Amino acid sequence: MPIDLNSDSGESFGNWPMGDDATMMRIVTSANVACGFHAGDASVMRTTTGLAAENSVAVGAHVSYQDLANFGRVFHDVPANNLTNIVLYQLGALSAIAAKAGTSIRYVKPHGALYNAIISHEAHAKAVVAALKEFDDSLPILCLPNSVIFDTADRAGLRPVVEAFADRAYTPEGTLVSRREAGAVITDPDVAAERMVRLVADGVIEAIDGSDVRFEAESICVHGDTPSAVSLAQQVREALTAAGIELKAFA
Amino acid sequence: MPIDLNSDSGESFGNWPMGDDATMMRIVTSANVACGFHAGDASVMRTTTGLAAENSVAVGAHVSYQDLANFGRVFHDVPANNLTNIVLYQLGALSAIAAKAGTSIRYVKPHGALYNAIISHEAHAKAVVAALKEFDDSLPILCLPNSVIFDTADRAGLRPVVEAFADRAYTPEGTLVSRREAGAVITDPDVAAERMVRLVADGVIEAIDGSDVRFEAESICVHGDTPSAVSLAQQVREALTAAGIELKAFA
Amino acid sequence: MPIDLNSDSGESFGNWPMGDDATMMRIVTSANVACGFHAGDASVMRTTTGLAAENSVAVGAHVSYQDLANFGRVFHDVPANNLTNIVLYQLGALSAIAAKAGTSIRYVKPHGALYNAIISHEAHAKAVVAALKEFDDSLPILCLPNSVIFDTADRAGLRPVVEAFADRAYTPEGTLVSRREAGAVITDPDVAAERMVRLVADGVIEAIDGSDVRFEAESICVHGDTPSAVSLAQQVREALTAAGIELKAFA
Amino acid sequence: MPIDLNSDSGESFGNWPMGDDATMMRIVTSANVACGFHAGDASVMRTTTGLAAENSVAVGAHVSYQDLANFGRVFHDVPANNLTNIVLYQLGALSAIAAKAGTSIRYVKPHGALYNAIISHEAHAKAVVAALKEFDDSLPILCLPNSVIFDTADRAGLRPVVEAFADRAYTPEGTLVSRREAGAVITDPDVAAERMVRLVADGVIEAIDGSDVRFEAESICVHGDTPSAVSLAQQVREALTAAGIELKAFA
Repeated sequence: MPIDLNSDSGESFGNWPMGDDATMMRIVTSANVACGFHAGDASVMRTTTGLAAENSVAVGAHVSYQDLANFGRVFHDVPANNLTNIVLYQLGALSAIAAKAGTSIRYVKPHGALYNAIISHEAHAKAVVAALKEFDDSLPILCLPNSVIFDTADRAGLRPVVEAFADRAYTPEGTLVSRREAGAVITDPDVAAERMVRLVADGVIEAIDGSDVRFEAESICVHGDTPSAVSLAQQVREALTAAGIELKAFA
Repeated sequence: MPIDLNSDSGESFGNWPMGDDATMMRIVTSANVACGFHAGDASVMRTTTGLAAENSVAVGAHVSYQDLANFGRVFHDVPANNLTNIVLYQLGALSAIAAKAGTSIRYVKPHGALYNAIISHEAHAKAVVAALKEFDDSLPILCLPNSVIFDTADRAGLRPVVEAFADRAYTPEGTLVSRREAGAVITDPDVAAERMVRLVADGVIEAIDGSDVRFEAESICVHGDTPSAVSLAQQVREALTAAGIELKAFA
Repeated sequence: MPIDLNSDSGESFGNWPMGDDATMMRIVTSANVACGFHAGDASVMRTTTGLAAENSVAVGAHVSYQDLANFGRVFHDVPANNLTNIVLYQLGALSAIAAKAGTSIRYVKPHGALYNAIISHEAHAKAVVAALKEFDDSLPILCLPNSVIFDTADRAGLRPVVEAFADRAYTPEGTLVSRREAGAVITDPDVAAERMVRLVADGVIEAIDGSDVRFEAESICVHGDTPSAVSLAQQVREALTAAGIELKAFA
Repeated sequence: MPIDLNSDSGESFGNWPMGDDATMMRIVTSANVACGFHAGDASVMRTTTGLAAENSVAVGAHVSYQDLANFGRVFHDVPANNLTNIVLYQLGALSAIAAKAGTSIRYVKPHGALYNAIISHEAHAKAVVAALKEFDDSLPILCLPNSVIFDTADRAGLRPVVEAFADRAYTPEGTLVSRREAGAVITDPDVAAERMVRLVADGVIEAIDGSDVRFEAESICVHGDTPSAVSLAQQVREALTAAGIELKAFA
């Protein structure tokens, strides 16, 4: 079984650069492209989808609540039908720009506060699923396992794709350790790489209490907004390759 | 030859209503739908394209500079490639929402300051044309005759469609009399209706100095953001019908 | 004891009008002026504070989460220190514009989702209070009785001012009946007026179950965004005056 | 005669950092603080004014057209009274936040496209001057010599302060060489430093054609958004100090 590496990209905005998309596009197999609601703008989206196309990286729509001021990291208690409409708006916008770059949206990944909300928020999970069904019900959606969004997407006939986080610790229940707790973030590239190889090879990851958690993932999320994040991503890629695991976009 | 009636629509925003789209959709044959950059938002776009679909009204993308604060009425001296990208972004967003309403973008009409700019601003005219070519080069674009945008679109192989304004006076050269001058706006529905019938039937309109201007239009722009504008639109429609002229979307 | 009448004002935005501020300013004694974060913009703020000054109406800062798209009606889970800063930003902006109109901020009223949040959300209540203490700790703040914001403001040495809603039903506990429930909104101007006279004269209002609730208010909130709301406000004013109650700004 | 060094600061926005304000605040004597319209937000403004206060750097309001998407670098053809109002809004917002940091606005510098526009655009120059007169007519305004804004401010009884650009070439007429032309930007810190010493000591700068231009400046603008810009600023400071010139805020 091949594994996918996904990373956020296109998170510059106007005059503000963010991340090193050109480098990350040579490491990952899927790029979560910001659609202008938490980051990115039409010109950034064009550059980013162009880079993805050149590097044969799959483009994902990184859809978000509408909140540049907070980078989409703040929960918005918006009505569900509004949320469906703004997700659809973002999908359409990215679609037109990706087409011009000779590529297309291959999957969807909710961003930031929206990603976190729909782990448990049923109305917003349904709203996102509704948008995907309306836009293109063949698009897979990246999510955490055992989440409301996974189940909602699954029941609606969409394809939920489980992802693991290379730089995060897990609870014994297989959920992410909150960033507020000690040890939540894994910064050592070797440790991260080793954990991901084991996860892909054996379907097991060590939880923060030392116990083993069983867990199947089709994609690994690596981050790229800092130099050390890029080298962690690079390390994960190399370790997977060294272990004979094929890297390939899931979508 | 049939004639088209077009009107701005979907110019509400969030909690702020504007215009009476439900009534106008029963009068016009084409609706210029705001795409969220000067007015409209994802939910307004959905309602508006739904109304258009129900009334068999053709949907046009009313693309604009990005400026909700000034309703797209202020010239922005943006770089041409940025302009191409934001037009493409708007086209994609509206396209996804229109598709959900069972319809699609059938033409493009630049809005406000952008409409006025590209009468003479070559770089911005080219930028708009580039966006259309990238998105769908079969889409016609509404414009003033004898304008840079008309010629630019024409040379690029697009289909520029000339429109006349039912509520505006013309100069002897066939351009619009500036709103700052007396007599620029025609408020009497009977006068407007009579002028439009003559224009469609004979290809002639009386200029502000009393001379006749020859002029061919495939569409007539009527406005609908005030009660009197709605009745002017209604009067124009009735007068055209009474004169045996067929009303039909050009796109 | 005189009573204050307050109303939202300055909620137009750019090209979108809202409400009839000119009429309401002749009815109310205090105007909650939008500061550009949920509605209003610099030019609207200028017109609105000008109207308030002409009519000797007290200017209140109607501060909000930053969300024009949702008119400040959607809860934003922003960090507390950010909230303090955006409230301070709004207070400063309105202050400069009010000064030019020959008036000044006399009180603060949180708007929409923020108003509702701080009835119970301690961190956001504290954040708002912190902004007031930093800006001008002599400014009173309008709030519901028995709320977290009332207690937080009170403990911090600010002056919380209780307001009643002329067009809303109350529970037996003295809280507002949710708008989702039948009978939540009082639309009959006579009923509203009579209830407010009794509240001011006797400190009692009839709850939705017919029981009496004791309740002291220094201000009555009336709305003015629809013609019927204006006439309800007018009726409340006339009934209070007829009952010999003086109308006077609390601040 | 002492000389002032000014630099743009507070140009981060939300999650996007920009520049190294902490370092620049130890080099310059005046900081042009973004007010949220081209960059900056309430929290960034707080941090920035705090840094300025700690370093005894004078705070200037870096006012702009409202355009985060284009970093205020695109001309907006807004009506003059709107421009006055948005400048006043920004001054008020920064004022409240600076007060909390224990400092206050000491001068104004228009930003980007607005700075360039009012070199020649009379209506916008007057609009900016009107805002200053309304807010605090004792505030000086930084501008180019021989500009419409200089004359407009001067005639209105404001204090226009001439600034020179350490990293820009000059025409024989004393205007800036356009960035589109070769040699417009001076990147060698030694050259820049030497030119500024001569300008301050002798009132002369060498133009791009080798001729001498006479020129009096009370402030020197240095930039700090790149590492090399910081070292150019540092070099200019050291050269001036070595030449026995005192560095001191003009306001």
